[in-house]
Amino acid sequence: MTDLSQALFAPRGVALVGASADPAKNNSRAQRLLLREGFKGRIVPVNPGRSEVMGLPAVADIREAGDAIDHAFIMVPSSAVLKAVEGCCEIGVKVATIFSAGFAEAGEEGAVLQRRIVETARAGGLRLVGPNCLGLLSVPDRLALTLNVAIEAEELKPGWLGMVSQSGSMMGALFSRAAARGLGFSRMVSVGNECDLGVGELTELLVEDPETRMVLLFLETFRDADRLAAAARRAHELGKPIIAYKLGRSELGRRLALSHTGAMVGGDELASAFFRDHGILRVETLEALVELPRLILGHRPPRGRRLSALTATGGGAAMVIDRLGLMGDELLPPPEDMRARLAEKTIEVSDAPLIDLPMGMSGPERFSLVLRELVASDHSDAVVAVLGSGARTDAARAIAHIAPALPSPRPLAVFAAPQADETLRRMDEAGIAAFRTPESCADAVHTYLSWRAPRDLGADLTPGETDAAARKLADAPPGALNELEACAVFATLGIEPPGAAVVATPDEVGDFAGPVAVKLLSPDILHKTDAGLVRLNIEGRDAIRATVAELLAKAREGFPQARIDGVLVAPMHRGLQEVILGYREDAEVGPIILLGMGGVMAELKRSFSVRLAPVGLDEARAMIAELPELKLIQGFRGLPRGDVDALARAIRSLSLLATLPGRPVQEAEINPLIIRAEGQGAVAVDGLLVPR
Amino acid sequence: MTDLSQALFAPRGVALVGASADPAKNNSRAQRLLLREGFKGRIVPVNPGRSEVMGLPAVADIREAGDAIDHAFIMVPSSAVLKAVEGCCEIGVKVATIFSAGFAEAGEEGAVLQRRIVETARAGGLRLVGPNCLGLLSVPDRLALTLNVAIEAEELKPGWLGMVSQSGSMMGALFSRAAARGLGFSRMVSVGNECDLGVGELTELLVEDPETRMVLLFLETFRDADRLAAAARRAHELGKPIIAYKLGRSELGRRLALSHTGAMVGGDELASAFFRDHGILRVETLEALVELPRLILGHRPPRGRRLSALTATGGGAAMVIDRLGLMGDELLPPPEDMRARLAEKTIEVSDAPLIDLPMGMSGPERFSLVLRELVASDHSDAVVAVLGSGARTDAARAIAHIAPALPSPRPLAVFAAPQADETLRRMDEAGIAAFRTPESCADAVHTYLSWRAPRDLGADLTPGETDAAARKLADAPPGALNELEACAVFATLGIEPPGAAVVATPDEVGDFAGPVAVKLLSPDILHKTDAGLVRLNIEGRDAIRATVAELLAKAREGFPQARIDGVLVAPMHRGLQEVILGYREDAEVGPIILLGMGGVMAELKRSFSVRLAPVGLDEARAMIAELPELKLIQGFRGLPRGDVDALARAIRSLSLLATLPGRPVQEAEINPLIIRAEGQGAVAVDGLLVPR
Repeated sequence: MTDLSQALFAPRGVALVGASADPAKNNSRAQRLLLREGFKGRIVPVNPGRSEVMGLPAVADIREAGDAIDHAFIMVPSSAVLKAVEGCCEIGVKVATIFSAGFAEAGEEGAVLQRRIVETARAGGLRLVGPNCLGLLSVPDRLALTLNVAIEAEELKPGWLGMVSQSGSMMGALFSRAAARGLGFSRMVSVGNECDLGVGELTELLVEDPETRMVLLFLETFRDADRLAAAARRAHELGKPIIAYKLGRSELGRRLALSHTGAMVGGDELASAFFRDHGILRVETLEALVELPRLILGHRPPRGRRLSALTATGGGAAMVIDRLGLMGDELLPPPEDMRARLAEKTIEVSDAPLIDLPMGMSGPERFSLVLRELVASDHSDAVVAVLGSGARTDAARAIAHIAPALPSPRPLAVFAAPQADETLRRMDEAGIAAFRTPESCADAVHTYLSWRAPRDLGADLTPGETDAAARKLADAPPGALNELEACAVFATLGIEPPGAAVVATPDEVGDFAGPVAVKLLSPDILHKTDAGLVRLNIEGRDAIRATVAELLAKAREGFPQARIDGVLVAPMHRGLQEVILGYREDAEVGPIILLGMGGVMAELKRSFSVRLAPVGLDEARAMIAELPELKLIQGFRGLPRGDVDALARAIRSLSLLATLPGRPVQEAEINPLIIRAEGQGAVAVDGLLVPR
Repeated sequence: MTDLSQALFAPRGVALVGASADPAKNNSRAQRLLLREGFKGRIVPVNPGRSEVMGLPAVADIREAGDAIDHAFIMVPSSAVLKAVEGCCEIGVKVATIFSAGFAEAGEEGAVLQRRIVETARAGGLRLVGPNCLGLLSVPDRLALTLNVAIEAEELKPGWLGMVSQSGSMMGALFSRAAARGLGFSRMVSVGNECDLGVGELTELLVEDPETRMVLLFLETFRDADRLAAAARRAHELGKPIIAYKLGRSELGRRLALSHTGAMVGGDELASAFFRDHGILRVETLEALVELPRLILGHRPPRGRRLSALTATGGGAAMVIDRLGLMGDELLPPPEDMRARLAEKTIEVSDAPLIDLPMGMSGPERFSLVLRELVASDHSDAVVAVLGSGARTDAARAIAHIAPALPSPRPLAVFAAPQADETLRRMDEAGIAAFRTPESCADAVHTYLSWRAPRDLGADLTPGETDAAARKLADAPPGALNELEACAVFATLGIEPPGAAVVATPDEVGDFAGPVAVKLLSPDILHKTDAGLVRLNIEGRDAIRATVAELLAKAREGFPQARIDGVLVAPMHRGLQEVILGYREDAEVGPIILLGMGGVMAELKRSFSVRLAPVGLDEARAMIAELPELKLIQGFRGLPRGDVDALARAIRSLSLLATLPGRPVQEAEINPLIIRAEGQGAVAVDGLLVPR
């Protein structure tokens, strides 16, 4: 255990700053919990008005708390927090968990106060959790520094789940929901405003914690994605799954998360890309957050999304399978050799994908014989078993259907169609992954089947491949690059530039005879098409010269203050398909690469694929496969084939911006990239690059 | 109560054909349940081997059962069922519920047996439930004719829910799940193979049943959609909601439903259209089937999809609201006057859409004051209230947050974020619509907000409007109509025909100078484009003549057996957009009208809108609004406008096929319909019509 973990979760002593002696007050709860749970370390209530609080000697100021106070829990009003933090620093407290609200979440004044607290703590060697958080639990150490009323209602049974929550109230809600299913926690932290210790660093600590076998995250946003990513990769090495529930799937939800936490927000697809690429399992339903852990305990990411299923009730199983089908998982029938082995035991099973043991065939012995075959077979990656009405009345018999198949070499999910509280309770006790609703069962099984090891974010760089781009960016003047400069950077990465020239006067128009596009260059004029500063399909040297002259005059007249970099004269490119390539340093998840359809339809109907950057060629091809429109240039109905390889190379190339030292690019876009016929490449017709 | 209802649910006497005296046998369960529940009528066990079964005199044959046996429950092997049915007819039994399996669900031999039973029953005046069903319950009459083990485990408390289930096992599962939430049933029927009494007719009976205030349906398929539709419309008149859960949302699920029931299947969009157009509420989650009824009891379909929400826990509420946002529901902030009234009571509420009462502000009194304002306000159609950790520990206090807002003028959904069994139990008792998971809460609220009164399927017919179409169809030779004939039928309904001519020889090519399309006409050649029998953009009289000659020769050579109806010569039409219009007599839901995008993209990316036919102009415009691609011809980005009114008229016109006497059309399609510029109409370029 690191020193930080020790101070957080197993402190030698704790100070309760703002402890109340009135049991009706929230501020009394932490001390009551510590006493009830038998916390072994010193407990020092800090209360300026009392010399004793609930039987323990109290001090008036944290500075009087004495030695070996590793952790302070601060519950005083926000105006008094800074003084408490200063006191913590003075007596060598290592961590302070700040329950008090009224900081960054409350507006600019609070944000200023929060910054002062952080600076003070940093200078004094003090780490902070919160503020505006509901505290933390460390069950093996009997440490309960929280005011959550739901947690006080539970017996703090130790378990192997760690948890980090951006919602304070959900810490208690999840504790109680897990407890009802016989699951306990090792450590649990509500992070509040994350002014210092954030989700990423706390996840790192939990991943390394020997008491923790799995980490649950309840997230509203990402504030330290790089650190969370590193923790997820370490978790994979250690075989400790991380399961996340994240709010903000809808626009409405994102707005709520925004007002609730004051954090930056982004599209939900980016969150999904982040989880997928870093090997984090993301559930969609709250109940799956509690029911998935037993399903995957001890298992690694699967090879495919293949499922097998056995049921004693057709309707009950269909509810689960129907949802899995909606999500694209595949239900496979039992293989021939399995059917033959079962037939020898007089169990006739058809080659239908769902194995439905009808009434006369059912019963624990036959059911479990089939189930043992299924969990042992390589033909699927996970197994669903569904029990019928009997699970309502006879829990022992229900268990007997399942238990002989344990321990299961692959995840085995059990759903009971009727209300079956006692069966669920006994399955929970036996460590069987049992599900209360078909929706949670399907969500958990699908989440497992979609789980992949963290993706290699290497992109197979050739040594020196990005050196020229890095140099060009280092040499560029400050501010956004114009179209030509941007495309020149992309060209160093191997993306064909438009072959355009910039002219300052009509006389500089050289051999261009057209057809060309003529476009005014200026970083200060944003909507050039609307301003009439872009002309397409101009043919003939004279017409081109005239157009250049006209655009220059129009710009000088219409935008007298604008810096004018000249006029771009570019060949008109033709191809089979236009796409948009985008790169962005996302505020939440870091660098991303996006492939979208070009043209007017892109605005009407979102169609895009997104990944964390960089990507290699294989991943670029996977992105291409996600856009149905691109089938048009892949041999669909005899239509001419486009240069999909060149597209894949361009996607990879643009994503390499994420590998430049210091990640100097905030945003880059190629719009459009025109894909020519097979073997003839793809050309960046227009580009944009904004440094950080 | 009708005679049929009486015999089904309140028979004077029942015969249990195949009753067993061995309590370990399934066949003993019905009698045990009847005795336990105190069924008031006569109970006659039929068992050829015993004179007494569980204390009651038994007869060897149903014919000896005596008078006043209105209902027989048949549990004998399939081979003995026909004899039992004959016996029922002989002694004047009115209904037989057949548990026995081995009929249509088991293959062709079983289907033959099933048909014989149906014929026998029909001749003898006997109505049938099943076969292959789990029986029925009529709780007010203490009638339990079922072998379901989950039902035996429950106390049969009467309630106001009626239920019809195509899954036998789900009858028991739902009974137990509803019982756990304090909900009881009036009547419940498992329909099995629906050889006679089907979902539609049984729903009709339940809708008219004074003991039933709401009907739940668990469906795998539709077998009598017209009758179910009529029942749904009657239910709306009586203010009795119908709630459906339907399997088969995924392809995989449809395949399971198929193998399970042997019924015809169709796309899930058709099922959704059926439910929506007939005013049936469709839930997506199993739990919502049990949790939605209390939410909507006493309420009618809402005016809009506007929601308001109040919470004591930000994270807990966000889980519900996020999902509702994903489904497109709108969360509205409290109106100004409400905020002013609350401010007078020292409750400061912001204009954020989610009303989050923070810790210092919360407590039952303040919470319920805000809630009373919300449920009374017209600015939203439904209200969500979310409770935090306190609901775990203090159920009475949790209820006090909600109860003062009751009875609520609009649906009020309560979600408790933590595990809160006691709070849920007490809310269930108090009739409050309480939800165990955010997913079920969101599903139920969204289902309510999407609920609409049954749509008027009138389409505002002008008298005589379809007479010409009916005549043309009546006069047509048997078999599919060719392109020209089909378009001629559509023309009588007001859809512009392509202006084409059919020629038998090149000499018949008249004034056509082109550009034209030339296409061989033959009902026997299916893929004419692939066979080179379609030519486009032919210009000049000579070229047209030559093409006609060539296609005739090619067809005679390549398809010597084919009937050749001539060659179609049609002007090439141009417009702004192509769409496909389809009409079909669907095997499950009846006549439907479909609008889809034309061209190659239609195959790559499904984009369509579907309704039950016929539709009026307003509904046709709603269909157009569902296709984002069609925004391209509605003024998007200054692009030219297309004749959307003409499109709407064409949709309505084709849908009028559903109003023809006897509905003579199986399938009709216009592909493509070309939409010209605003005011210039839309033309059916190619068509197809298949009579029934």
